[in-house]
Amino acid sequence: MTIRAVVWGENVHERKNKVVAGVYPTGMHQAIADALNADPGIEAATATLDQPKNGLPKGRLDDVDVLVWWGHAAHGEVEDKVVERVAEAVWGGMGLILLHSAHFSKIFKRLMGTPCNLTWREAGERERIWVTSRSHPIAAGLPDHFELEQEEMYGEPFGVPEPLETVFVSWFQGGEVFRSGLTWRRGAGNVFYFRPGHETYPTYHDANVQTVLRNAVKWAHNPAPRIASVNDAPNVPVAKALEPIEERGPRLHHDGEEGYR
Amino acid sequence: MTIRAVVWGENVHERKNKVVAGVYPTGMHQAIADALNADPGIEAATATLDQPKNGLPKGRLDDVDVLVWWGHAAHGEVEDKVVERVAEAVWGGMGLILLHSAHFSKIFKRLMGTPCNLTWREAGERERIWVTSRSHPIAAGLPDHFELEQEEMYGEPFGVPEPLETVFVSWFQGGEVFRSGLTWRRGAGNVFYFRPGHETYPTYHDANVQTVLRNAVKWAHNPAPRIASVNDAPNVPVAKALEPIEERGPRLHHDGEEGYR
Amino acid sequence: MTIRAVVWGENVHERKNKVVAGVYPTGMHQAIADALNADPGIEAATATLDQPKNGLPKGRLDDVDVLVWWGHAAHGEVEDKVVERVAEAVWGGMGLILLHSAHFSKIFKRLMGTPCNLTWREAGERERIWVTSRSHPIAAGLPDHFELEQEEMYGEPFGVPEPLETVFVSWFQGGEVFRSGLTWRRGAGNVFYFRPGHETYPTYHDANVQTVLRNAVKWAHNPAPRIASVNDAPNVPVAKALEPIEERGPRLHHDGEEGYR
Amino acid sequence: MTIRAVVWGENVHERKNKVVAGVYPTGMHQAIADALNADPGIEAATATLDQPKNGLPKGRLDDVDVLVWWGHAAHGEVEDKVVERVAEAVWGGMGLILLHSAHFSKIFKRLMGTPCNLTWREAGERERIWVTSRSHPIAAGLPDHFELEQEEMYGEPFGVPEPLETVFVSWFQGGEVFRSGLTWRRGAGNVFYFRPGHETYPTYHDANVQTVLRNAVKWAHNPAPRIASVNDAPNVPVAKALEPIEERGPRLHHDGEEGYR
Repeated sequence: MTIRAVVWGENVHERKNKVVAGVYPTGMHQAIADALNADPGIEAATATLDQPKNGLPKGRLDDVDVLVWWGHAAHGEVEDKVVERVAEAVWGGMGLILLHSAHFSKIFKRLMGTPCNLTWREAGERERIWVTSRSHPIAAGLPDHFELEQEEMYGEPFGVPEPLETVFVSWFQGGEVFRSGLTWRRGAGNVFYFRPGHETYPTYHDANVQTVLRNAVKWAHNPAPRIASVNDAPNVPVAKALEPIEERGPRLHHDGEEGYR
Repeated sequence: MTIRAVVWGENVHERKNKVVAGVYPTGMHQAIADALNADPGIEAATATLDQPKNGLPKGRLDDVDVLVWWGHAAHGEVEDKVVERVAEAVWGGMGLILLHSAHFSKIFKRLMGTPCNLTWREAGERERIWVTSRSHPIAAGLPDHFELEQEEMYGEPFGVPEPLETVFVSWFQGGEVFRSGLTWRRGAGNVFYFRPGHETYPTYHDANVQTVLRNAVKWAHNPAPRIASVNDAPNVPVAKALEPIEERGPRLHHDGEEGYR
Repeated sequence: MTIRAVVWGENVHERKNKVVAGVYPTGMHQAIADALNADPGIEAATATLDQPKNGLPKGRLDDVDVLVWWGHAAHGEVEDKVVERVAEAVWGGMGLILLHSAHFSKIFKRLMGTPCNLTWREAGERERIWVTSRSHPIAAGLPDHFELEQEEMYGEPFGVPEPLETVFVSWFQGGEVFRSGLTWRRGAGNVFYFRPGHETYPTYHDANVQTVLRNAVKWAHNPAPRIASVNDAPNVPVAKALEPIEERGPRLHHDGEEGYR
Repeated sequence: MTIRAVVWGENVHERKNKVVAGVYPTGMHQAIADALNADPGIEAATATLDQPKNGLPKGRLDDVDVLVWWGHAAHGEVEDKVVERVAEAVWGGMGLILLHSAHFSKIFKRLMGTPCNLTWREAGERERIWVTSRSHPIAAGLPDHFELEQEEMYGEPFGVPEPLETVFVSWFQGGEVFRSGLTWRRGAGNVFYFRPGHETYPTYHDANVQTVLRNAVKWAHNPAPRIASVNDAPNVPVAKALEPIEERGPRLHHDGEEGYR
């Protein structure tokens, strides 16, 4: 079964900044989608901020298995409705991969419930990424560590909830460390944050990074049918209780009434 | 050191519903605060929805160690600004206890990043609460289980992220189960959800429930100084790197510039 | 790729107890293996305590993807060497599914590092198993709950470490609850405990239980190559450090020496 | 209430190696105990391998709140009975702090259920320890990072189960990273592993390290009464079931019989 992925990119610096345009002439979203499509088991399309409804109109996510998100300069321009749409898709079972500066995207902060902040330095320094969870599916085919000769530094503390698993930890030349690969589950959706990917460096052309991207998409894919009613809180009437009970005591709600929200 | 607690109550049904007013003549918030104040190590005040700024104006949370939250019928009336104020206090180190129908409060959903939904039935049935984490501080002084003869049923699946710890699991007469006591950390703040407490029953007059409330407040208290700048993402300039590095490659940001958000 | 499973059964009560022999005429291990083999993606064989080396001689586990373990009356007869062999296979990436009374097996206690105790009652009472993690792969194809009309009761507290995920929680007719489906990772190996399966009841003939077994085997399968040297603690000599460093200060160890254990 | 701590040291290199004896003239255990005793809320004694029963005879742990463990060259000489005694005390509620090379101690491997291995280099290189969990009690009073100018390197992957919390991550001059402060719970006992402390360097004389040690002891202290019967698996007879049930179907066990182990 082919996994249907969409790579969302804000596509701002690729058009405004010569350096970024030089590194990613077809856009970062396209470079990432190309890396995914190198795997015959993945079929990756793209969506960008400048498209109508930020490229994610109603219905678009219905048959998306995994969404990959890269944003940086224009987090604030993503419509709140779109953010909510993505959140509901995740709760229903869609996988979500957040890349690099997407740590400050609305959708990541929405799903984490924390500030998602960190320290940073843009100096083109060396990053060395260590696998901390041996044989984790997201690390399949990787050596025990790999290097990116030039990257932006992100440093701890990383303002996120304790993850389910820590898959990667980064070493930086300037003296910092960062938990670079973390997993969570939100509803039925698998969520993975992966640190590297500053737009002025050729990170998404790196073979090991591309391996992580493909692995992450496969890991995040939940083959279960999408849950439609992710926010439902159904009442179970006394008459339908699984064990026979009788109603006792006072009540607030009338029969058939919905609960408060 | 005395722990400074505030019990926030929406105080709606206590005024509009005779049954609830009968069970909690001084309001649920006051009953809970009284239970907390029975411990000399806790000093509990109250705040209610009908007060200016929902009872939580700017500055009110600055010297609150733990906030206890009960809401049901009026979640939507809590101002978004107040919700954000509470979230920031939690990230900075304030403890937060969510009670019963607060599962659908704005602040709980905000911190969890999930729908926080469940199934329910209002039939005054028996609930038996089992301690699943022996000798957990929140279960101090409790027997291995205790009963509430009349409670509303909440059933799984409970739409929350995997907790740090599962402290209680409930058995319901009608055949359901529920993870009734769960802990998380959000930023520097300890968060605890405790299921019992439907307003038409005398749950908060129960001795075991009161023990849980007091334990939870003590557990949630983080004595560290409140973090002021919970959303900061400081730049570390090359010149101040902990290990000597030289700037290499292209840059997006100018010296002294703030990062994107 | 077919998943290679082995179902280990102690095969004691099936031979000594008429009731058990009647329910599982070919042995519980065979009944479980048959249920797994109903899935074309799984190829399940069996191993039993009475075989040489408890059915798991050196090398047997080398090409086993997932081991399923059922034991009860004869935990003490499993050789410690065999237990260690299984543990090393798990750390290297083999999946392990522990069933019912295997909570007290040597291998489960070895991997958990805790007593793994619980309360129990053999009364043929009703068990209702609730899915607590919607759309979890181990719950694929299940309804939101299912019942076993007759089962042994296991009650909380369950003496295990906090799991990665709680997949199932059970309700018992006699008033107890139990976290019936829990996941952990030990080294590169996925571990799942599933509660039902008392030998005097036809639990492993139940369609929903069989679905869980097949799902669990697929979930536990780690396709990564088995890690051979699970206990290695390699020295990284100064000359091979990834960043240039000079040796400073006193040393305990000579060049090429192994570390202490 | 004063916390009663015992610092266990193997006390081997302090007596055999001139360098170590020079750094810790009264033994590492005594240096650590002295650091703990600087806090009026802690009363720390010591125990060493060369004492009868490895310094931990039956009964010694009964009134110990937190045990601190440092071992390296003589892990194998610790009696298995003593290891089991410590494990049972932890399950019953005693806190346990494992230091540095104690990653390979019998008791740590016993409680983790994993190999607890890592990579290492003894070069006296710089270690920088970053706080990853802001305002965690174990990090109270620390800056956001601190340095040890000379330490042994430990590198990932660290062969332990996913922790409850990651409190510290280390950066090493030679290019590695390590999760240096991790918490777990085993039974009712809080467990903390803290990486620094190679015997040829003055690590335990460092003010920040001493702060961590004192914080960790306070964090690990569980004031609940010690659980005596940590391995019990009590039968709940039908007649004492909390909800009325009738015995149905066949049974293996006779009334009053103990369960299998």
